[in-house]
Amino acid sequence: MILLDGKIISEQVKVEIAQEVENIKKQGGKVPHLVAILVGHDGGSETYVANKEKSCTQVGFKSTVLRFEDTVTEAKLLYEINLLNNNPDVDGFIVQMPLPKHISEQKITEAIDPKKDVDGFHPLNVGRMTIGMPAYISATPDGIIELLRRYKIETSGKHCVVLGRSNIVGRPISNLLSLKGYPGDCTVTVCHSRTKNIPEITRTADILIVALGQAEYVTADMVKEGAVVIDVGINRIKSDATKSGWKLLGDVKFDEVAPKCSYITPVPGGVGLLTIVSLLKNTLKAAKKEIYG
Amino acid sequence: MILLDGKIISEQVKVEIAQEVENIKKQGGKVPHLVAILVGHDGGSETYVANKEKSCTQVGFKSTVLRFEDTVTEAKLLYEINLLNNNPDVDGFIVQMPLPKHISEQKITEAIDPKKDVDGFHPLNVGRMTIGMPAYISATPDGIIELLRRYKIETSGKHCVVLGRSNIVGRPISNLLSLKGYPGDCTVTVCHSRTKNIPEITRTADILIVALGQAEYVTADMVKEGAVVIDVGINRIKSDATKSGWKLLGDVKFDEVAPKCSYITPVPGGVGLLTIVSLLKNTLKAAKKEIYG
Repeated sequence: MILLDGKIISEQVKVEIAQEVENIKKQGGKVPHLVAILVGHDGGSETYVANKEKSCTQVGFKSTVLRFEDTVTEAKLLYEINLLNNNPDVDGFIVQMPLPKHISEQKITEAIDPKKDVDGFHPLNVGRMTIGMPAYISATPDGIIELLRRYKIETSGKHCVVLGRSNIVGRPISNLLSLKGYPGDCTVTVCHSRTKNIPEITRTADILIVALGQAEYVTADMVKEGAVVIDVGINRIKSDATKSGWKLLGDVKFDEVAPKCSYITPVPGGVGLLTIVSLLKNTLKAAKKEIYG
Repeated sequence: MILLDGKIISEQVKVEIAQEVENIKKQGGKVPHLVAILVGHDGGSETYVANKEKSCTQVGFKSTVLRFEDTVTEAKLLYEINLLNNNPDVDGFIVQMPLPKHISEQKITEAIDPKKDVDGFHPLNVGRMTIGMPAYISATPDGIIELLRRYKIETSGKHCVVLGRSNIVGRPISNLLSLKGYPGDCTVTVCHSRTKNIPEITRTADILIVALGQAEYVTADMVKEGAVVIDVGINRIKSDATKSGWKLLGDVKFDEVAPKCSYITPVPGGVGLLTIVSLLKNTLKAAKKEIYG
């Protein structure tokens, strides 16, 4: 069993990006600039945005955080987005979700210029990705693709079972892995809350991607010997055994599933660590105008 | 075994659309207007566009065909598309494919204002459809959905196997049927040229959708007793038995598969007849500004 190590791969990608930024600087080019809009004081969002800033600094990007109180109006946010859309110094930007209830997340997402939509959530980027055109791919599915690619895992003709059909994980990764080329050419089955006989289906998976958000849902009896298992779940569970009073569990019961796998992601330390790296990759692509020219 | 009759359903939908147009007229509203751009003299395209005009007339739409020789430049077509995008009298328009090789079909598709893209091929409409937002859905997947809906076929929790991953059939229908709601909530498996053991997979299908373009590919041994089979293939095969010298065959060996099915589409007379109806539905939605407001 080989661990799909998000830490090693994310460091590796960051080094590569840092080298590219160095080259851009040497050639007198403009350093990539990522802007994050942060509304309110949600703890998770604060941590995530702080990590983004740190990662930007590591690779040599310029990074800006625009903060708004959670009383900010939708109109004000749309106005700020419009400024960013038209600011040539900004290569890409994201609006950290969730947003307060009085603001439509969909309207905000659609207001972002697709050319600067480095989160890849604008429907134009989703559509382009779905039909195999160049597009910003959102962080989690891109992270999965990166892991498969870096570990040179064979995908062509493999049966990939995806548990979960969310717009941020299950649906995009199932579309990506059934596209032509590598990593892709999988036969893909998408399962969800309405699926009957999930264990029967997962046992046929050569590659099993789990994004249900249910701690330790996948048990050993649900996995084929030699399967590749990618666990996207991050569930915060109360624990007496830790100082903090809680621990992080994946959607896969790691201890019993791992021995059956050819490859498996740990949680934490797997796909999660690659999401910020994917954002950096997209920002670099935006700065180089790789997607939209 | 019940035949999913494209002729009956398409007539039914046309009657409903015609009634809506009557109501619009009575209220002094503007009659929906569909424009088709036809380049060159491809026989299939001529027939298809002629059928569209006929169907428009049947339901009371205004219909216009803009013809160009196959020497037309891409720039000229883009110019005409821009005129249509900005012409308030035109509710929706399509550019009949295929186009001559010197014209980029992708560039043409992306030049169409998504609000008037009644063929549903613009990546923005694909993306919106993929994540379950209101969108123009392209003709063939919409026709399949219409058949399932009109025959009240249960889809929730059913295993739907889609043979084919094209951007015009396999991929959109697999996304639609795995969305929440009806018709949807299927567990969906997408198979294609790289899939191993296709017969083994198709035998597990409650709903089998075949869009491979290979005459009589699906045989009785590949189908589960009681399955719903939807055949999207239309293959023109040489035949000594017909006056014309050719006959139309589906991707399914109808005579031997049909007795095993709960429902099956004939070819011709199945999904194919619903494609023009889907275009009419989208044009009506465009006129009523149902998708983009």
